[in-house]
Amino acid sequence: MRTALLGVGLIGGSIGLALRQAGWPVGGWGPNRRTLELAAGMGAIDRVASSAGAAVAQAELVVLAGPIRALPGLLRSVAAAASPGTVVTDVASVKEQVMRWAAELLPAHVDFVGGHPMAGKERQGIASAEAGLLRGRTYCLVPSVERPGPGSDRALDVGRALVEAVGAVPLVLEAAEHDRAVAATSHLPFVAAAALVRTVADELPGLAGAVAAGGFRDTTRVAAGSPEMHADICTFNRGALLACIERYQDALEAVKRMIGQPQIEAEFAAARRARLDWEGRAAGAGE
Amino acid sequence: MRTALLGVGLIGGSIGLALRQAGWPVGGWGPNRRTLELAAGMGAIDRVASSAGAAVAQAELVVLAGPIRALPGLLRSVAAAASPGTVVTDVASVKEQVMRWAAELLPAHVDFVGGHPMAGKERQGIASAEAGLLRGRTYCLVPSVERPGPGSDRALDVGRALVEAVGAVPLVLEAAEHDRAVAATSHLPFVAAAALVRTVADELPGLAGAVAAGGFRDTTRVAAGSPEMHADICTFNRGALLACIERYQDALEAVKRMIGQPQIEAEFAAARRARLDWEGRAAGAGE
Repeated sequence: MRTALLGVGLIGGSIGLALRQAGWPVGGWGPNRRTLELAAGMGAIDRVASSAGAAVAQAELVVLAGPIRALPGLLRSVAAAASPGTVVTDVASVKEQVMRWAAELLPAHVDFVGGHPMAGKERQGIASAEAGLLRGRTYCLVPSVERPGPGSDRALDVGRALVEAVGAVPLVLEAAEHDRAVAATSHLPFVAAAALVRTVADELPGLAGAVAAGGFRDTTRVAAGSPEMHADICTFNRGALLACIERYQDALEAVKRMIGQPQIEAEFAAARRARLDWEGRAAGAGE
Repeated sequence: MRTALLGVGLIGGSIGLALRQAGWPVGGWGPNRRTLELAAGMGAIDRVASSAGAAVAQAELVVLAGPIRALPGLLRSVAAAASPGTVVTDVASVKEQVMRWAAELLPAHVDFVGGHPMAGKERQGIASAEAGLLRGRTYCLVPSVERPGPGSDRALDVGRALVEAVGAVPLVLEAAEHDRAVAATSHLPFVAAAALVRTVADELPGLAGAVAAGGFRDTTRVAAGSPEMHADICTFNRGALLACIERYQDALEAVKRMIGQPQIEAEFAAARRARLDWEGRAAGAGE
Protein backbone atom coordinates (compact mmCIF):
# COMPACT_ATOMS: atom_id res chain seq x y z
CA MET A 1 0.00 0.00 0.00
CA ARG A 2 1.43 3.40 -0.99
CA THR A 3 2.18 5.03 2.35
CA ALA A 4 3.21 8.51 3.42
CA LEU A 5 4.96 8.95 6.77
CA LEU A 6 4.64 12.44 8.22
CA GLY A 7 7.32 12.35 10.90
CA VAL A 8 10.23 9.92 10.88
CA GLY A 9 11.39 9.71 14.49
CA LEU A 10 11.64 6.54 16.56
CA ILE A 11 8.11 5.29 15.88
CA GLY A 12 7.67 6.68 12.34
CA GLY A 13 11.11 5.42 11.35
CA SER A 14 10.49 1.97 12.84
CA ILE A 15 7.15 1.71 11.01
CA GLY A 16 8.89 2.78 7.79
CA LEU A 17 11.62 0.15 8.17
CA ALA A 18 9.05 -2.59 8.80
CA LEU A 19 6.80 -1.50 5.90
CA ARG A 20 9.76 -1.31 3.50
CA GLN A 21 10.72 -4.86 4.54
CA ALA A 22 7.14 -5.88 3.75
CA GLY A 23 7.57 -4.35 0.30
CA TRP A 24 5.33 -1.28 0.77
CA PRO A 25 6.41 1.92 -1.00
CA VAL A 26 6.92 4.58 1.69
CA GLY A 27 7.38 8.28 1.08
CA GLY A 28 8.32 10.52 3.97
CA TRP A 29 8.24 14.09 5.09
CA GLY A 30 9.20 15.87 8.28
CA PRO A 31 10.27 19.34 9.36
CA ASN A 32 13.96 18.41 9.61
CA ARG A 33 15.78 17.80 6.33
CA ARG A 34 18.73 16.01 7.93
CA THR A 35 16.42 13.58 9.75
CA LEU A 36 14.65 12.82 6.48
CA GLU A 37 17.93 12.09 4.72
CA LEU A 38 19.00 9.84 7.56
CA ALA A 39 15.65 8.01 7.34
CA ALA A 40 16.13 7.57 3.59
CA GLY A 41 19.71 6.39 4.14
CA MET A 42 18.54 3.77 6.67
CA GLY A 43 15.84 2.56 4.31
CA ALA A 44 12.91 3.73 6.46
CA ILE A 45 11.53 5.68 3.48
CA ASP A 46 12.23 5.28 -0.21
CA ARG A 47 11.32 8.83 -1.17
CA VAL A 48 11.85 12.19 0.54
CA ALA A 49 8.90 14.47 -0.21
CA SER A 50 9.40 18.22 -0.59
CA SER A 51 6.38 19.01 1.61
CA ALA A 52 3.71 17.33 3.70
CA GLY A 53 1.25 17.94 0.87
CA ALA A 54 3.53 16.37 -1.74
CA ALA A 55 4.00 13.29 0.47
CA VAL A 56 0.23 12.91 0.94
CA ALA A 57 -0.89 13.53 -2.64
CA GLN A 58 0.10 10.08 -3.96
CA ALA A 59 -0.62 8.07 -0.80
CA GLU A 60 -3.36 5.55 -0.05
CA LEU A 61 -2.36 5.56 3.63
CA VAL A 62 -0.98 8.49 5.63
CA VAL A 63 0.67 7.80 9.00
CA LEU A 64 0.98 10.87 11.23
CA ALA A 65 4.03 10.20 13.39
CA GLY A 66 4.92 13.70 14.58
CA PRO A 67 4.57 15.06 18.13
CA ILE A 68 0.99 15.30 19.46
CA ARG A 69 1.13 19.12 19.43
CA ALA A 70 1.96 18.99 15.69
CA LEU A 71 -1.06 16.86 14.77
CA PRO A 72 -3.58 19.68 14.09
CA GLY A 73 -1.13 21.23 11.61
CA LEU A 74 -0.42 17.89 9.96
CA LEU A 75 -4.16 17.12 9.71
CA ARG A 76 -4.66 20.46 7.94
CA SER A 77 -1.90 19.61 5.45
CA VAL A 78 -3.49 16.23 4.83
CA ALA A 79 -6.93 17.82 4.41
CA ALA A 80 -5.57 20.13 1.71
CA ALA A 81 -3.73 17.46 -0.30
CA ALA A 82 -5.29 14.01 0.17
CA SER A 83 -7.11 12.27 -2.68
CA PRO A 84 -10.60 10.88 -2.02
CA GLY A 85 -10.47 7.55 -0.21
CA THR A 86 -7.14 8.19 1.50
CA VAL A 87 -6.94 6.61 4.96
CA VAL A 88 -5.18 8.55 7.71
CA THR A 89 -3.93 7.21 11.03
CA ASP A 90 -1.68 8.45 13.85
CA VAL A 91 0.58 6.92 16.49
CA ALA A 92 -0.15 9.18 19.47
CA SER A 93 -0.42 7.95 23.06
CA VAL A 94 -3.73 9.76 23.57
CA LYS A 95 -6.79 9.10 21.46
CA GLU A 96 -9.87 11.15 22.47
CA GLN A 97 -8.26 14.47 21.59
CA VAL A 98 -6.79 13.14 18.35
CA MET A 99 -10.11 11.63 17.24
CA ARG A 100 -11.76 15.02 17.85
CA TRP A 101 -9.10 16.84 15.83
CA ALA A 102 -9.43 14.35 12.96
CA ALA A 103 -13.22 14.69 12.87
CA GLU A 104 -12.91 18.48 12.91
CA LEU A 105 -10.10 18.95 10.41
CA LEU A 106 -10.37 16.17 7.80
CA PRO A 107 -12.80 16.45 4.89
CA ALA A 108 -15.56 13.87 4.40
CA HIS A 109 -13.72 12.10 1.56
CA VAL A 110 -10.80 11.15 3.84
CA ASP A 111 -11.18 8.44 6.50
CA PHE A 112 -9.44 8.24 9.85
CA VAL A 113 -8.59 5.42 12.25
CA GLY A 114 -6.74 6.20 15.47
CA GLY A 115 -3.60 4.18 16.16
CA HIS A 116 -1.30 3.66 19.13
CA PRO A 117 1.55 1.17 18.88
CA MET A 118 2.51 0.19 22.45
CA ALA A 119 6.27 0.41 22.29
CA GLY A 120 8.86 2.98 23.06
CA LYS A 121 12.35 3.58 24.20
CA GLU A 122 13.97 6.30 26.26
CA ARG A 123 16.01 7.24 23.20
CA GLN A 124 13.90 9.10 20.69
CA GLY A 125 14.76 9.80 17.09
CA ILE A 126 15.38 8.05 13.81
CA ALA A 127 18.82 6.78 14.88
CA SER A 128 17.10 4.46 17.40
CA ALA A 129 14.48 3.15 14.93
CA GLU A 130 14.34 -0.62 14.28
CA ALA A 131 12.26 -2.72 11.90
CA GLY A 132 11.39 -5.05 14.80
CA LEU A 133 10.41 -2.39 17.36
CA LEU A 134 6.67 -3.16 17.15
CA ARG A 135 6.93 -6.89 16.46
CA GLY A 136 4.67 -8.81 18.83
CA ARG A 137 3.54 -5.59 20.57
CA THR A 138 -0.03 -4.52 21.15
CA TYR A 139 -1.12 -1.91 18.58
CA CYS A 140 -4.34 -0.13 19.59
CA LEU A 141 -6.78 0.81 16.81
CA VAL A 142 -9.63 3.23 17.49
CA PRO A 143 -12.40 3.41 14.85
CA SER A 144 -14.00 6.79 14.29
CA VAL A 145 -17.31 7.05 16.15
CA GLU A 146 -17.59 10.67 15.03
CA ARG A 147 -18.08 9.43 11.44
CA PRO A 148 -19.36 5.85 11.52
CA GLY A 149 -20.11 4.05 8.27
CA PRO A 150 -18.36 2.21 5.44
CA GLY A 151 -15.50 4.76 5.32
CA SER A 152 -14.71 4.18 8.97
CA ASP A 153 -14.92 0.39 8.48
CA ARG A 154 -12.54 0.55 5.55
CA ALA A 155 -10.13 2.74 7.55
CA LEU A 156 -10.14 0.10 10.28
CA ASP A 157 -9.34 -2.60 7.69
CA VAL A 158 -6.42 -0.51 6.42
CA GLY A 159 -5.29 0.01 10.01
CA ARG A 160 -5.34 -3.76 10.54
CA ALA A 161 -3.24 -4.26 7.39
CA LEU A 162 -0.71 -1.73 8.72
CA VAL A 163 -0.56 -3.47 12.12
CA GLU A 164 -0.07 -6.83 10.42
CA ALA A 165 2.65 -5.44 8.15
CA VAL A 166 4.70 -4.21 11.13
CA GLY A 167 4.21 -7.53 12.96
CA ALA A 168 2.16 -6.11 15.83
CA VAL A 169 -1.03 -7.41 17.47
CA PRO A 170 -4.16 -5.28 16.87
CA LEU A 171 -6.43 -4.33 19.78
CA VAL A 172 -9.59 -2.48 18.70
CA LEU A 173 -11.09 -0.28 21.40
CA GLU A 174 -12.84 3.02 22.08
CA ALA A 175 -10.89 6.25 22.53
CA ALA A 176 -12.10 6.89 26.09
CA GLU A 177 -11.32 3.38 27.32
CA HIS A 178 -7.91 3.56 25.63
CA ASP A 179 -7.12 6.84 27.35
CA ARG A 180 -8.21 5.60 30.78
CA ALA A 181 -6.20 2.38 30.42
CA VAL A 182 -2.95 4.09 29.32
CA ALA A 183 -3.40 6.82 31.94
CA ALA A 184 -3.25 4.06 34.57
CA THR A 185 -0.49 1.89 33.14
CA SER A 186 1.70 4.28 31.19
CA HIS A 187 1.07 7.98 31.93
CA LEU A 188 0.78 7.56 35.71
CA PRO A 189 3.97 5.42 35.89
CA PHE A 190 5.82 8.17 33.99
CA VAL A 191 4.59 10.88 36.38
CA ALA A 192 5.42 8.66 39.38
CA ALA A 193 8.95 8.04 38.06
CA ALA A 194 9.61 11.69 37.16
CA ALA A 195 8.39 12.85 40.60
CA LEU A 196 10.58 10.18 42.22
CA VAL A 197 13.67 11.46 40.43
CA ARG A 198 12.79 15.06 41.33
CA THR A 199 12.35 14.06 44.98
CA VAL A 200 15.91 12.74 45.24
CA ALA A 201 17.60 14.75 42.44
CA ASP A 202 19.60 16.97 44.81
CA GLU A 203 21.03 13.91 46.55
CA LEU A 204 21.93 11.90 43.45
CA PRO A 205 25.38 13.45 42.87
CA GLY A 206 26.28 12.39 46.43
CA LEU A 207 25.93 9.38 48.68
CA ALA A 208 22.35 8.54 47.66
CA GLY A 209 23.44 8.21 44.04
CA ALA A 210 26.35 6.00 45.08
CA VAL A 211 24.11 3.55 46.94
CA ALA A 212 21.28 3.62 44.36
CA ALA A 213 21.03 0.21 42.73
CA GLY A 214 18.86 -1.82 40.40
CA GLY A 215 15.60 -0.93 42.14
CA PHE A 216 16.13 2.78 41.62
CA ARG A 217 17.33 2.18 38.06
CA ASP A 218 14.21 0.25 37.03
CA THR A 219 11.68 2.32 38.94
CA THR A 220 12.90 5.57 37.35
CA ARG A 221 13.89 4.34 33.87
CA VAL A 222 10.92 5.92 32.09
CA ALA A 223 11.75 9.33 33.61
CA ALA A 224 14.51 9.57 30.97
CA GLY A 225 11.81 9.71 28.26
CA SER A 226 11.06 12.73 26.10
CA PRO A 227 9.92 15.75 28.19
CA GLU A 228 8.08 17.18 25.16
CA MET A 229 6.14 13.99 24.48
CA HIS A 230 5.18 13.51 28.11
CA ALA A 231 4.18 17.16 28.51
CA ASP A 232 1.83 16.66 25.53
CA ILE A 233 0.49 13.41 26.97
CA CYS A 234 -0.28 15.11 30.30
CA THR A 235 -1.95 18.03 28.56
CA PHE A 236 -4.05 15.96 26.20
CA ASN A 237 -4.98 13.17 28.63
CA ARG A 238 -5.43 15.56 31.54
CA GLY A 239 -8.74 14.29 32.88
CA ALA A 240 -7.95 10.59 32.99
CA LEU A 241 -4.41 11.23 34.27
CA LEU A 242 -5.49 13.58 37.08
CA ALA A 243 -7.97 10.98 38.29
CA CYS A 244 -5.15 8.39 38.37
CA ILE A 245 -2.72 10.70 40.17
CA GLU A 246 -5.34 11.40 42.82
CA ARG A 247 -5.96 7.70 43.39
CA TYR A 248 -2.17 7.24 43.56
CA GLN A 249 -1.90 9.98 46.18
CA ASP A 250 -4.56 8.18 48.21
CA ALA A 251 -2.66 4.88 47.91
CA LEU A 252 0.56 6.56 49.11
CA GLU A 253 -1.25 8.18 52.01
CA ALA A 254 -2.65 4.75 52.95
CA VAL A 255 0.83 3.18 52.92
CA LYS A 256 2.18 6.06 54.99
CA ARG A 257 -0.47 5.50 57.65
CA MET A 258 0.32 1.75 57.73
CA ILE A 259 4.06 2.16 58.41
CA GLY A 260 4.73 0.56 61.77
CA GLN A 261 1.32 -1.22 61.75
CA PRO A 262 1.08 -4.97 61.16
CA GLN A 263 -1.29 -4.57 58.16
CA ILE A 264 1.45 -3.10 55.98
CA GLU A 265 2.71 -6.60 55.24
CA ALA A 266 -0.71 -7.60 53.86
CA GLU A 267 -0.77 -4.39 51.80
CA PHE A 268 2.62 -5.19 50.23
CA ALA A 269 1.57 -8.83 49.74
CA ALA A 270 -1.50 -7.63 47.78
CA ALA A 271 0.72 -5.43 45.59
CA ARG A 272 3.13 -8.32 45.02
CA ARG A 273 0.29 -10.68 44.04
CA ALA A 274 -1.27 -8.18 41.61
CA ARG A 275 2.12 -7.52 40.00
CA LEU A 276 2.97 -11.23 39.64
CA ASP A 277 -0.52 -12.07 38.33
CA TRP A 278 -0.18 -9.36 35.69
CA GLU A 279 3.27 -10.60 34.73
CA GLY A 280 1.96 -14.14 34.40
CA ARG A 281 -0.88 -13.00 32.12
CA ALA A 282 1.51 -10.83 30.06
CA ALA A 283 3.87 -13.81 29.65
CA GLY A 284 0.91 -16.03 28.73
CA ALA A 285 -0.13 -13.49 26.08
CA GLY A 286 3.33 -13.81 24.53
CA GLU A 287 4.56 -10.39 25.68
CA MET B 1 38.30 -17.24 58.02
CA ARG B 2 35.96 -19.65 59.86
CA THR B 3 32.52 -18.23 59.20
CA ALA B 4 29.04 -18.95 60.54
CA LEU B 5 26.03 -17.97 58.47
CA LEU B 6 22.85 -17.52 60.49
CA GLY B 7 20.23 -17.51 57.75
CA VAL B 8 20.81 -19.01 54.30
CA GLY B 9 18.31 -17.28 52.01
CA LEU B 10 19.14 -15.32 48.86
CA ILE B 11 21.80 -13.08 50.43
CA GLY B 12 23.16 -15.50 53.04
CA GLY B 13 23.29 -18.29 50.46
CA SER B 14 25.03 -16.08 47.90
CA ILE B 15 27.62 -14.97 50.49
CA GLY B 16 28.15 -18.62 51.42
CA LEU B 17 28.69 -19.67 47.79
CA ALA B 18 31.21 -16.86 47.24
CA LEU B 19 33.10 -17.54 50.49
CA ARG B 20 33.26 -21.27 49.77
CA GLN B 21 34.72 -20.45 46.34
CA ALA B 22 37.31 -18.29 48.12
CA GLY B 23 38.16 -21.29 50.28
CA TRP B 24 36.63 -20.11 53.57
CA PRO B 25 35.07 -22.77 55.81
CA VAL B 26 31.38 -21.86 56.25
CA GLY B 27 29.02 -23.41 58.77
CA GLY B 28 25.36 -22.55 58.61
CA TRP B 29 22.24 -22.52 60.67
CA GLY B 30 18.69 -21.38 60.02
CA PRO B 31 15.22 -22.14 61.36
CA ASN B 32 14.27 -24.32 58.37
CA ARG B 33 15.99 -27.70 58.14
CA ARG B 34 15.10 -28.24 54.47
CA THR B 35 16.60 -24.86 53.48
CA LEU B 36 19.79 -25.73 55.33
CA GLU B 37 20.09 -29.04 53.52
CA LEU B 38 19.49 -27.31 50.19
CA ALA B 39 22.21 -24.76 51.06
CA ALA B 40 24.61 -27.57 51.95
CA GLY B 41 23.72 -29.41 48.73
CA MET B 42 24.44 -26.29 46.65
CA GLY B 43 27.77 -25.78 48.41
CA ALA B 44 26.77 -22.54 50.15
CA ILE B 45 27.75 -24.06 53.51
CA ASP B 46 30.02 -26.99 54.26
CA ARG B 47 28.52 -27.82 57.64
CA VAL B 48 24.93 -27.75 58.94
CA ALA B 49 24.95 -26.72 62.59
CA SER B 50 22.40 -28.15 65.01
CA SER B 51 21.67 -24.73 66.55
CA ALA B 52 22.60 -21.07 66.19
CA GLY B 53 24.85 -21.45 69.24
CA ALA B 54 26.64 -24.48 67.80
CA ALA B 55 27.26 -22.59 64.51
CA VAL B 56 28.67 -19.59 66.37
CA ALA B 57 30.86 -21.43 68.90
CA GLN B 58 33.67 -22.25 66.45
CA ALA B 59 33.40 -19.13 64.26
CA GLU B 60 35.75 -16.17 63.90
CA LEU B 61 33.12 -14.34 61.83
CA VAL B 62 29.34 -14.55 62.23
CA VAL B 63 27.12 -13.22 59.41
CA LEU B 64 23.51 -12.58 60.47
CA ALA B 65 21.48 -13.06 57.29
CA GLY B 66 17.99 -13.62 58.67
CA PRO B 67 15.02 -11.23 58.42
CA ILE B 68 15.43 -7.91 60.26
CA ARG B 69 12.74 -8.87 62.79
CA ALA B 70 14.80 -11.97 63.69
CA LEU B 71 18.01 -10.06 64.43
CA PRO B 72 17.43 -9.41 68.17
CA GLY B 73 16.92 -13.15 68.72
CA LEU B 74 19.97 -14.03 66.64
CA LEU B 75 22.11 -11.47 68.49
CA ARG B 76 21.07 -13.05 71.80
CA SER B 77 22.12 -16.49 70.51
CA VAL B 78 25.46 -15.07 69.40
CA ALA B 79 25.94 -13.34 72.76
CA ALA B 80 25.46 -16.64 74.57
CA ALA B 81 27.81 -18.72 72.42
CA ALA B 82 30.52 -16.56 70.81
CA SER B 83 34.17 -16.89 71.84
CA PRO B 84 36.08 -13.72 72.75
CA GLY B 85 37.22 -11.82 69.66
CA THR B 86 34.45 -13.07 67.40
CA VAL B 87 33.35 -10.48 64.84
CA VAL B 88 29.65 -10.23 64.01
CA THR B 89 28.07 -8.53 61.02
CA ASP B 90 24.62 -8.40 59.39
CA VAL B 91 23.20 -7.81 55.90
CA ALA B 92 20.09 -5.76 56.74
CA SER B 93 18.84 -2.82 54.65
CA VAL B 94 18.56 -0.58 57.72
CA LYS B 95 21.49 0.21 59.96
CA GLU B 96 20.65 2.58 62.85
CA GLN B 97 18.27 0.14 64.51
CA VAL B 98 20.61 -2.82 63.95
CA MET B 99 23.62 -0.94 65.39
CA ARG B 100 21.53 -0.14 68.48
CA TRP B 101 20.49 -3.78 68.92
CA ALA B 102 24.09 -4.97 68.52
CA ALA B 103 25.38 -2.50 71.12
CA GLU B 104 22.60 -3.52 73.50
CA LEU B 105 22.72 -7.27 73.10
CA LEU B 106 26.34 -8.27 72.38
CA PRO B 107 28.86 -8.67 75.21
CA ALA B 108 32.01 -6.52 75.31
CA HIS B 109 34.26 -9.37 74.07
CA VAL B 110 32.38 -9.60 70.74
CA ASP B 111 32.76 -6.89 68.07
CA PHE B 112 30.20 -5.76 65.55
CA VAL B 113 30.37 -4.08 62.14
CA GLY B 114 27.15 -3.30 60.28
CA GLY B 115 26.90 -4.56 56.71
CA HIS B 116 24.56 -3.98 53.77
CA PRO B 117 25.33 -5.56 50.42
CA MET B 118 23.45 -3.55 47.75
CA ALA B 119 21.95 -6.32 45.68
CA GLY B 120 18.70 -8.14 45.57
CA LYS B 121 16.25 -9.92 43.42
CA GLU B 122 12.49 -10.23 43.49
CA ARG B 123 12.94 -13.94 44.10
CA GLN B 124 14.00 -14.60 47.66
CA GLY B 125 15.38 -17.82 49.02
CA ILE B 126 18.35 -20.13 48.73
CA ALA B 127 17.25 -21.50 45.33
CA SER B 128 17.98 -18.06 43.78
CA ALA B 129 21.40 -17.67 45.44
CA GLU B 130 24.45 -17.19 43.20
CA ALA B 131 28.16 -16.92 43.96
CA GLY B 132 28.34 -13.81 41.76
CA LEU B 133 25.31 -11.95 43.17
CA LEU B 134 27.40 -9.34 45.00
CA ARG B 135 30.30 -9.17 42.55
CA GLY B 136 31.07 -5.55 41.67
CA ARG B 137 28.21 -4.31 43.90
CA THR B 138 28.50 -1.67 46.58
CA TYR B 139 28.66 -3.25 50.05
CA CYS B 140 28.08 -0.72 52.85
CA LEU B 141 30.05 -1.17 56.07
CA VAL B 142 29.07 0.74 59.22
CA PRO B 143 31.63 0.79 62.06
CA SER B 144 30.27 0.76 65.59
CA VAL B 145 30.24 4.27 67.06
CA GLU B 146 28.51 2.89 70.16
CA ARG B 147 31.76 1.05 71.02
CA PRO B 148 34.68 2.75 69.31
CA GLY B 149 38.19 1.44 69.80
CA PRO B 150 40.52 -1.31 68.60
CA GLY B 151 37.74 -3.93 68.62
CA SER B 152 35.60 -1.81 66.31
CA ASP B 153 38.60 -1.17 64.03
CA ARG B 154 39.35 -4.89 63.84
CA ALA B 155 35.68 -5.64 63.09
CA LEU B 156 35.85 -3.17 60.20
CA ASP B 157 38.98 -4.92 58.87
CA VAL B 158 37.18 -8.27 59.05
CA GLY B 159 34.20 -6.68 57.29
CA ARG B 160 36.49 -5.47 54.51
CA ALA B 161 37.96 -8.96 54.14
CA LEU B 162 34.42 -10.36 53.80
CA VAL B 163 33.49 -7.74 51.17
CA GLU B 164 36.65 -8.51 49.22
CA ALA B 165 36.03 -12.26 49.41
CA VAL B 166 32.56 -11.89 47.85
CA GLY B 167 33.94 -9.57 45.14
CA ALA B 168 31.98 -6.48 46.24
CA VAL B 169 33.12 -2.88 46.65
CA PRO B 170 33.24 -1.59 50.26
CA LEU B 171 31.68 1.77 51.17
CA VAL B 172 32.27 2.79 54.79
CA LEU B 173 29.69 5.21 56.16
CA GLU B 174 27.66 6.16 59.23
CA ALA B 175 24.40 4.42 60.07
CA ALA B 176 22.26 7.57 59.85
CA GLU B 177 23.63 8.66 56.48
CA HIS B 178 23.20 5.09 55.18
CA ASP B 179 19.59 5.00 56.30
CA ARG B 180 18.78 8.39 54.74
CA ALA B 181 20.45 7.46 51.44
CA VAL B 182 18.69 4.10 51.07
CA ALA B 183 15.37 5.60 52.19
CA ALA B 184 15.61 7.91 49.15
CA THR B 185 16.92 5.50 46.53
CA SER B 186 15.61 2.12 47.63
CA HIS B 187 12.84 2.25 50.26
CA LEU B 188 10.93 5.15 48.66
CA PRO B 189 11.08 3.53 45.16
CA PHE B 190 9.61 0.35 46.67
CA VAL B 191 6.76 2.23 48.35
CA ALA B 192 6.14 4.21 45.14
CA ALA B 193 6.02 1.00 43.08
CA ALA B 194 3.79 -0.87 45.54
CA ALA B 195 1.35 2.07 45.73
CA LEU B 196 1.37 2.26 41.92
CA VAL B 197 0.37 -1.39 41.62
CA ARG B 198 -2.32 -0.95 44.28
CA THR B 199 -3.69 2.07 42.42
CA VAL B 200 -4.31 0.08 39.26
CA ALA B 201 -4.63 -3.44 40.70
CA ASP B 202 -8.38 -3.68 40.08
CA GLU B 203 -7.89 -2.81 36.41
CA LEU B 204 -4.95 -5.12 35.69
CA PRO B 205 -7.00 -8.23 34.89
CA GLY B 206 -8.79 -6.18 32.20
CA LEU B 207 -7.95 -3.72 29.46
CA ALA B 208 -5.37 -1.76 31.47
CA GLY B 209 -3.36 -4.94 32.01
CA ALA B 210 -3.57 -5.75 28.31
CA VAL B 211 -2.15 -2.37 27.24
CA ALA B 212 0.46 -2.21 30.03
CA ALA B 213 3.90 -2.42 28.48
CA GLY B 214 7.59 -2.07 29.32
CA GLY B 215 7.16 1.19 31.23
CA PHE B 216 4.71 -0.36 33.67
CA ARG B 217 6.83 -3.50 33.93
CA ASP B 218 10.00 -1.61 34.92
CA THR B 219 8.37 0.98 37.13
CA THR B 220 6.63 -1.68 39.23
CA ARG B 221 9.22 -4.48 39.14
CA VAL B 222 10.36 -3.99 42.76
CA ALA B 223 6.75 -4.29 44.00
CA ALA B 224 7.14 -8.06 43.52
CA GLY B 225 9.72 -8.09 46.32
CA SER B 226 9.24 -9.73 49.71
CA PRO B 227 6.33 -8.18 51.68
CA GLU B 228 7.90 -9.30 54.96
CA MET B 229 11.27 -7.73 54.22
CA HIS B 230 9.76 -4.46 53.05
CA ALA B 231 7.38 -4.30 56.03
CA ASP B 232 10.45 -4.61 58.28
CA ILE B 233 12.34 -1.97 56.30
CA CYS B 234 9.44 0.47 56.63
CA THR B 235 9.12 -0.22 60.35
CA PHE B 236 12.81 0.06 61.14
CA ASN B 237 13.62 3.00 58.83
CA ARG B 238 10.36 4.79 59.59
CA GLY B 239 11.71 8.29 60.22
CA ALA B 240 13.89 8.63 57.12
CA LEU B 241 11.29 6.93 54.93
CA LEU B 242 8.36 9.07 56.10
CA ALA B 243 10.40 12.20 55.34
CA CYS B 244 11.04 10.89 51.81
CA ILE B 245 7.40 9.93 51.21
CA GLU B 246 6.31 13.41 52.26
CA ARG B 247 8.75 15.05 49.85
CA TYR B 248 7.51 12.66 47.17
CA GLN B 249 3.91 13.65 47.86
CA ASP B 250 4.94 17.30 47.45
CA ALA B 251 6.67 16.50 44.13
CA LEU B 252 3.53 14.73 42.86
CA GLU B 253 1.35 17.62 43.93
CA ALA B 254 3.68 20.00 42.05
CA VAL B 255 3.43 17.91 38.86
CA LYS B 256 -0.36 17.76 39.22
CA ARG B 257 -0.56 21.55 39.40
CA MET B 258 1.66 21.91 36.30
CA ILE B 259 -0.47 19.70 34.04
CA GLY B 260 -1.68 21.89 31.21
CA GLN B 261 0.90 24.60 32.08
CA PRO B 262 3.95 25.21 29.87
CA GLN B 263 6.43 24.70 32.76
CA ILE B 264 5.67 20.99 32.96
CA GLU B 265 8.05 20.37 30.06
CA ALA B 266 10.92 22.01 32.01
CA GLU B 267 9.97 19.93 35.05
CA PHE B 268 10.17 16.67 33.06
CA ALA B 269 13.40 17.87 31.39
CA ALA B 270 14.94 18.39 34.85
CA ALA B 271 13.90 14.86 35.87
CA ARG B 272 15.32 13.45 32.65
CA ARG B 273 18.63 15.24 33.14
CA ALA B 274 19.00 14.11 36.76
CA ARG B 275 18.22 10.51 35.78
CA LEU B 276 20.67 10.50 32.85
CA ASP B 277 23.40 12.20 34.93
CA TRP B 278 23.02 9.55 37.62
CA GLU B 279 23.12 6.77 35.04
CA GLY B 280 26.29 8.26 33.54
CA ARG B 281 27.96 8.38 36.94
CA ALA B 282 26.81 4.84 37.78
CA ALA B 283 28.22 3.59 34.45
CA GLY B 284 31.45 5.51 35.11
CA ALA B 285 31.71 3.83 38.51
CA GLY B 286 31.54 0.45 36.79
CA GLU B 287 28.01 -0.34 37.97
